[in-house]
Amino acid sequence: MRPLSVAFVGAEAGTWSIERLEVVLGEPLAPVSHLEVLDGSGAVHPPRDAVWVLRGVTSNERYVNRVEHSELASRQEPPGRAGSRRAALIPIRKSQAWWDLAQDERRRIFEETSHHVAIGLEYLPAVARRLLHGRDLGEPFDFLTWFEFVPEHAVVFEELVQRLRATEEWTYVEREIDLRLARVSHTGDS
Amino acid sequence: MRPLSVAFVGAEAGTWSIERLEVVLGEPLAPVSHLEVLDGSGAVHPPRDAVWVLRGVTSNERYVNRVEHSELASRQEPPGRAGSRRAALIPIRKSQAWWDLAQDERRRIFEETSHHVAIGLEYLPAVARRLLHGRDLGEPFDFLTWFEFVPEHAVVFEELVQRLRATEEWTYVEREIDLRLARVSHTGDS
Repeated sequence: MRPLSVAFVGAEAGTWSIERLEVVLGEPLAPVSHLEVLDGSGAVHPPRDAVWVLRGVTSNERYVNRVEHSELASRQEPPGRAGSRRAALIPIRKSQAWWDLAQDERRRIFEETSHHVAIGLEYLPAVARRLLHGRDLGEPFDFLTWFEFVPEHAVVFEELVQRLRATEEWTYVEREIDLRLARVSHTGDS
Repeated sequence: MRPLSVAFVGAEAGTWSIERLEVVLGEPLAPVSHLEVLDGSGAVHPPRDAVWVLRGVTSNERYVNRVEHSELASRQEPPGRAGSRRAALIPIRKSQAWWDLAQDERRRIFEETSHHVAIGLEYLPAVARRLLHGRDLGEPFDFLTWFEFVPEHAVVFEELVQRLRATEEWTYVEREIDLRLARVSHTGDS
């Protein structure tokens, strides 16, 4: 599969209701009530009433080795599961110091020190995850990570986020927004 | 530095005269007489009479370790040297099998087996090189590599290209074009 383009559109209507928009670090993002997620050709022309549009592409893996890849693949589930009525979108931007590191240095911090994959594995398959890359597109955020889970797993998800924020890897994060979302119900209750 | 956007424009006029356009593997690229290289904001709106436009961005390094990075940095020179009146643009696309490999597998083939960096180092500083990434932009080519050298080094450059094409890494290349260029002289001779 070639990289898939994804647009996250903040607007006054959408499939997801934004329950919380927290500026964790750095420049804020304009508050808005709803989010729409557009894939592929739909991502090219976002609605005109968008307050903001964040873009990213799925891409090849950058740090994960074969053993980790196989473990992840055997345990993770794709977004879109029927019961996943809660989601999170966490856009982050890393510092120039991070991008100036060589590949082996970034890998060492990512996994040998910060255990990014090992921590993430503990929350599978409860939390479905999709990583989008934005840096090479000239986007304000280097990464947009999308998570989905059933409402009962909101507490475990919070624990995952806090553990990752406590790692050495996160000392290289210079901008981070944390959006928590609830799927808008067709019957009117969210 | 954030990634820099670069556009290579094939047209009937430009700074570089295309002396040879060879389809090494896969789908061809339309023949054209000249090439223009546009950087940054200039890359956004290429001329209307362009026959084709190939786009890429400079990005962070993907495979090189700290030791290799330092060796490269101490020996390589940037494009734009006064005597560099010859250049090459080699757009390539790698197969899905390559992109499906894990990071450690790609690194092993790239350097431990194919010695991509070690071979390249032998041709520094004679050959100046700039690597652009296009895959995440949805471009037809995954990589656009630009090389510059003085006319006397055309033979050594040819040797470099042939050695890289003989590596295991190159068995994953499914499309490759090889353009050789001469800088158009202000006095009329090229």
